Amino acid sequence: MIPEGASYFLSWRLAVEANNAREWRTVPSQCLSYVEAYMLGGQYDRDLDLIVDQILGYINEIVPSDDGAMDAWILDVDDTCISNLFYYRGKRYGCDPFDPAGFKAWALKGGCPAIPAVLGLFKYLVRNGFKVFLVTGRDQETLDQATIDNLHNQGFIGYERLIFKTAGFKGQSASAYKSEIRRRLEKEGYRILGNVGDQWSDLQGECLGSRAYKLPNPMYFVP
Amino acid sequence: MIPEGASYFLSWRLAVEANNAREWRTVPSQCLSYVEAYMLGGQYDRDLDLIVDQILGYINEIVPSDDGAMDAWILDVDDTCISNLFYYRGKRYGCDPFDPAGFKAWALKGGCPAIPAVLGLFKYLVRNGFKVFLVTGRDQETLDQATIDNLHNQGFIGYERLIFKTAGFKGQSASAYKSEIRRRLEKEGYRILGNVGDQWSDLQGECLGSRAYKLPNPMYFVP
Repeated sequence: MIPEGASYFLSWRLAVEANNAREWRTVPSQCLSYVEAYMLGGQYDRDLDLIVDQILGYINEIVPSDDGAMDAWILDVDDTCISNLFYYRGKRYGCDPFDPAGFKAWALKGGCPAIPAVLGLFKYLVRNGFKVFLVTGRDQETLDQATIDNLHNQGFIGYERLIFKTAGFKGQSASAYKSEIRRRLEKEGYRILGNVGDQWSDLQGECLGSRAYKLPNPMYFVP
Repeated sequence: MIPEGASYFLSWRLAVEANNAREWRTVPSQCLSYVEAYMLGGQYDRDLDLIVDQILGYINEIVPSDDGAMDAWILDVDDTCISNLFYYRGKRYGCDPFDPAGFKAWALKGGCPAIPAVLGLFKYLVRNGFKVFLVTGRDQETLDQATIDNLHNQGFIGYERLIFKTAGFKGQSASAYKSEIRRRLEKEGYRILGNVGDQWSDLQGECLGSRAYKLPNPMYFVP
């Protein structure tokens, strides 16, 4: 028998990861200790490991196209390549509302650790000749250098392009912005074979590519 | 600390429900006791209850259109409205491969119990004037009467139409078939406000409507 609080957290997390819960602003307070246990106790890492295993299985079935130089993968950055867990620990794992200034200050420090399973995936993709595009909703003007440095010092080396949100996209949803970026990449001739993100808004909209993979994130929702 | 088998099942179930695992044929054998505990021990029901709560929250935000008579909801049938759990118990909860003849014999008996949370949703939709379309991959020729009777005796009364897979769709994927049905409904003038199913193939493709809700099903995958 699962205790009531743990059971509620399981249901809530399932609703989030299956994209049933939308536009949620904060993690329900009663879930606090369960989110913490999930993120720090090993289950989050095991969930990531299994998804990356599945992605690798898919990659190994891909028949490279004649023009393999245009075979692309898209990876989101925050809580896909690098982790904001230490930041969100100070925000009660998402039970506190989003704090744009606080997050910006954290991102400027450039201290986000790599998410090991995704770093492994990234290296595998680069080694096998795929063009990897890192597409982030981070603001180019203020966060570009800190992000470039952060990714580099965490081992994300060899990507084709790191694409930031520029002023022209201000006010657009992540889904609209990322759809437009994918549209441009397709127009350049890239074939998007896979798209990996921790938010459904990374994975929905237009020009979705061949396969999308949703990584877990029970701490926040980006519309 | 979560035991290893339970932890693996959690990861596997998350991958299934977030649509990361695709084209899977059977539940991994090591998950058998965990699927059983999930389906029978209360967590499955609680997961459904939470999703239906979220659907009701969405419904209550809907501003009825002037022509409310064309506001439609689509519900899948198997393991959305009515449950095949008792059948799958005999198939080791999906650890055994799909058995078309066995399933047909089961469906012909017309003994699938209603899924209580979804029956409640169905009644709420009908009571509030929405047009409810039940769209099933069951074969019209062989299963129509048994299914009509089964739904009726389980309380699914007042739907607008029950749509079976006809011979013309034979060999088409669930996603292609259901997309075409939705396209026809939209052509008739219906506005699809919501779409509820236990399979991603119920919810992907074309003419997706305003919102989709994925109900849990760790026992089988319909492409």
